Amino acid sequence: MMRMYDIILKKREGQELSTEEINFFINGYNSGAIPDYQAAAFLMAVFFRGLNDRETADLTMAMCDSGDRAELSAIPGIKVDKHSTGGVGDKTTLILVPLVAAAGAPVAKMSGRGLGHTGGTIDKLESIPGFNVALEPKEFIEQVRRVGAAVVAQTGRLAPADKKLYALRDVTATVDSVPLIAGSVMSKKIASGADAIVLDVKVGSGAFMRDNNSAFKLARAMVDIGNKVGRRTVALITGMDQPLGYAVGNALEVIEAIETLKGQGPDDLMEICLALGATMLLLAGKAGSTDEGRKKLLYLLESGKALEKLEEFIAAQGGDPSVVREYWRLPAAKMTMDIPAPASGFVQAIHAEKIGRAAMMLGAGREKKDSPVDLSAGLILNKKTGDVVTAGETIAVLHTNNLSSLDKVGKIVQSAYAFSEKRPELLPLVIGSVQ
Amino acid sequence: MMRMYDIILKKREGQELSTEEINFFINGYNSGAIPDYQAAAFLMAVFFRGLNDRETADLTMAMCDSGDRAELSAIPGIKVDKHSTGGVGDKTTLILVPLVAAAGAPVAKMSGRGLGHTGGTIDKLESIPGFNVALEPKEFIEQVRRVGAAVVAQTGRLAPADKKLYALRDVTATVDSVPLIAGSVMSKKIASGADAIVLDVKVGSGAFMRDNNSAFKLARAMVDIGNKVGRRTVALITGMDQPLGYAVGNALEVIEAIETLKGQGPDDLMEICLALGATMLLLAGKAGSTDEGRKKLLYLLESGKALEKLEEFIAAQGGDPSVVREYWRLPAAKMTMDIPAPASGFVQAIHAEKIGRAAMMLGAGREKKDSPVDLSAGLILNKKTGDVVTAGETIAVLHTNNLSSLDKVGKIVQSAYAFSEKRPELLPLVIGSVQ
Repeated sequence: MMRMYDIILKKREGQELSTEEINFFINGYNSGAIPDYQAAAFLMAVFFRGLNDRETADLTMAMCDSGDRAELSAIPGIKVDKHSTGGVGDKTTLILVPLVAAAGAPVAKMSGRGLGHTGGTIDKLESIPGFNVALEPKEFIEQVRRVGAAVVAQTGRLAPADKKLYALRDVTATVDSVPLIAGSVMSKKIASGADAIVLDVKVGSGAFMRDNNSAFKLARAMVDIGNKVGRRTVALITGMDQPLGYAVGNALEVIEAIETLKGQGPDDLMEICLALGATMLLLAGKAGSTDEGRKKLLYLLESGKALEKLEEFIAAQGGDPSVVREYWRLPAAKMTMDIPAPASGFVQAIHAEKIGRAAMMLGAGREKKDSPVDLSAGLILNKKTGDVVTAGETIAVLHTNNLSSLDKVGKIVQSAYAFSEKRPELLPLVIGSVQ
Repeated sequence: MMRMYDIILKKREGQELSTEEINFFINGYNSGAIPDYQAAAFLMAVFFRGLNDRETADLTMAMCDSGDRAELSAIPGIKVDKHSTGGVGDKTTLILVPLVAAAGAPVAKMSGRGLGHTGGTIDKLESIPGFNVALEPKEFIEQVRRVGAAVVAQTGRLAPADKKLYALRDVTATVDSVPLIAGSVMSKKIASGADAIVLDVKVGSGAFMRDNNSAFKLARAMVDIGNKVGRRTVALITGMDQPLGYAVGNALEVIEAIETLKGQGPDDLMEICLALGATMLLLAGKAGSTDEGRKKLLYLLESGKALEKLEEFIAAQGGDPSVVREYWRLPAAKMTMDIPAPASGFVQAIHAEKIGRAAMMLGAGREKKDSPVDLSAGLILNKKTGDVVTAGETIAVLHTNNLSSLDKVGKIVQSAYAFSEKRPELLPLVIGSVQ
């Protein structure tokens, strides 16, 4: 008879676990037969001993199989999904869904809500009046077939073992383990039913992975899982040393995404979207190379076809497509407050996590899982890394309905900016790729 | 505000915890404010990262202070306690209590019950008709003053945090960590109120510590704690490659202990008792050297004074002192069964843990904390390491009232014996000491 005690001991001693042992753990933990304290000791042993490729793939598939799997075979073509490891101001999904769909690649996407200092696509979409993120599976598939794109909120039935384990990792200091992160991400992606997966692994001060080494390691682990279970997977490693674009906050980010689809977005955001989108087209078989994919995407942006697809996608999910031209239809905060630069010089860096936390405190994000969100709240950065600033000049504008902590938030935003007399070296946005 | 999460993370990253952090953990866990799963993750991080001397001493004192402390100052003289890290057939306490008391060193001892394959002094004493192990603190102290010796059962109020933590370690594969073992043992010894402590750290196949390295490490850690908190502590490292003596089981071990006090005990048992007892006398100030202590003890054994003290001690606690001469007054099993040697040759080794498990299955020990114990059950080894055996000759005799698993137990006993054609090298019993 298998016992969890022996599985903990085996991993503690650095031995390889069998597929049966990993299944025993995931099934037992998911059903409640294995208590939290044994799972917690096991997770800490995994933190120290790691999991090899085979074990990581087994863990992933066991978590994936703990719940429902989306059945997308009724949608013709190669379904490509995209996942980012979390960032501040990351609205790439809002842009890529219509853009890639406009290129003929079907997008059937499940997304999450924001937590802590990072935002979530579902919250952002809900700032569009009428937008429905809770389609039935049949409607979801029917919409992808008809419009080429649909986005729904992840349900608790998607990889529930991952959900339960993640909550435990969060309170036992076992989140930042490469195989556990890789398994968590990939179990949901695989359960979501995609044929191919493009991963955006962020690295830098605003990201979970602080250095290139760990970012490439995580990318390698996730790509290995995908390939092992027959999902073609490519990861891009991208810099997150400052927030992406200028807008942070749900409705504010929707506006910036629309601007980008109009060809008027910030350079960094545009660059990341082209890199990820071209890779998605390649995997979907809609481009023979990323260069070709990039050209296709640029044409769709310039011709207005990407924007048209956004309108069609919004309307299909019950949203008001006129937001695309009339931004006043989106929720707007009652107050704005300018934040002055505390010093002069070049902006050396912007601590993305601090900006994310500031936006959360303004109402844009959730401190806990069931906190309410103010879809209108957030902030707009006026200055980004490399810009020249004079002390007193506005570096950011807060948008909020919450008077209680304005001064505190202002100070956090100021402290997120670092200034210097020398022009900073700008790091490349796309640092590398793993396939 | 202190948070358990940060304490787990800090230890996981290999940083030193402050006294306040260790107190926060122990007090929070003991009160139930810190959940099992956080404690489990922390224990596994400690397994990998260790605790330094200061942290180990802090952990020990925090566990010690989680409950009552015995107040022995009303007893004149230096009170020396003795602790063994657990063995099979280890009846040294039964011998040392009257022996050391006869030498004038007061013995005020709290002991535990047996669990799993190791026996407990309290169970052994309870096989003496009438013996009361539940003295009130006042009676306990009064008896030590009058008779020189008393033994009571540990209560749940002695280091309750250790008790709770030990139960968690037991199911999360975090028992065998040197600082955690050291803290667990020493917290109870210090709470028991002794001024000085003699430790018997067993090493070998029948012990918790399988090699000299880890045994010395554990001894060093325990002695360091004792010295740090002002309790003079000495550890002997002793071999446990086979059970101690010939008898395993409660009443059977009482008889062997009495025989030893009569000067007729097995050589190995006698040797260990003299080594530990001499060290106890040294620490109690009743001998100027262990050599002098040893001579004193030999005189007390030969003169019959040690045996007299045993009778006095048994009578003081309500037991029938005539058991010392009339063994039939002790509980006796209804059945005995001879186990034949499965092969001829020299006994190369006897796996002590297997012998302990066999005794437990015969009824002598507890599988779980509240299983009943048959005080008459156990086994007598006829052959020990180095003895010559002919196939079919009796190597051990089972004593039991339980018919159900006799054959299985017989096979376990046979499998515990290893035979060879070459005379085995006998290892020294006392391997070293740490002070």
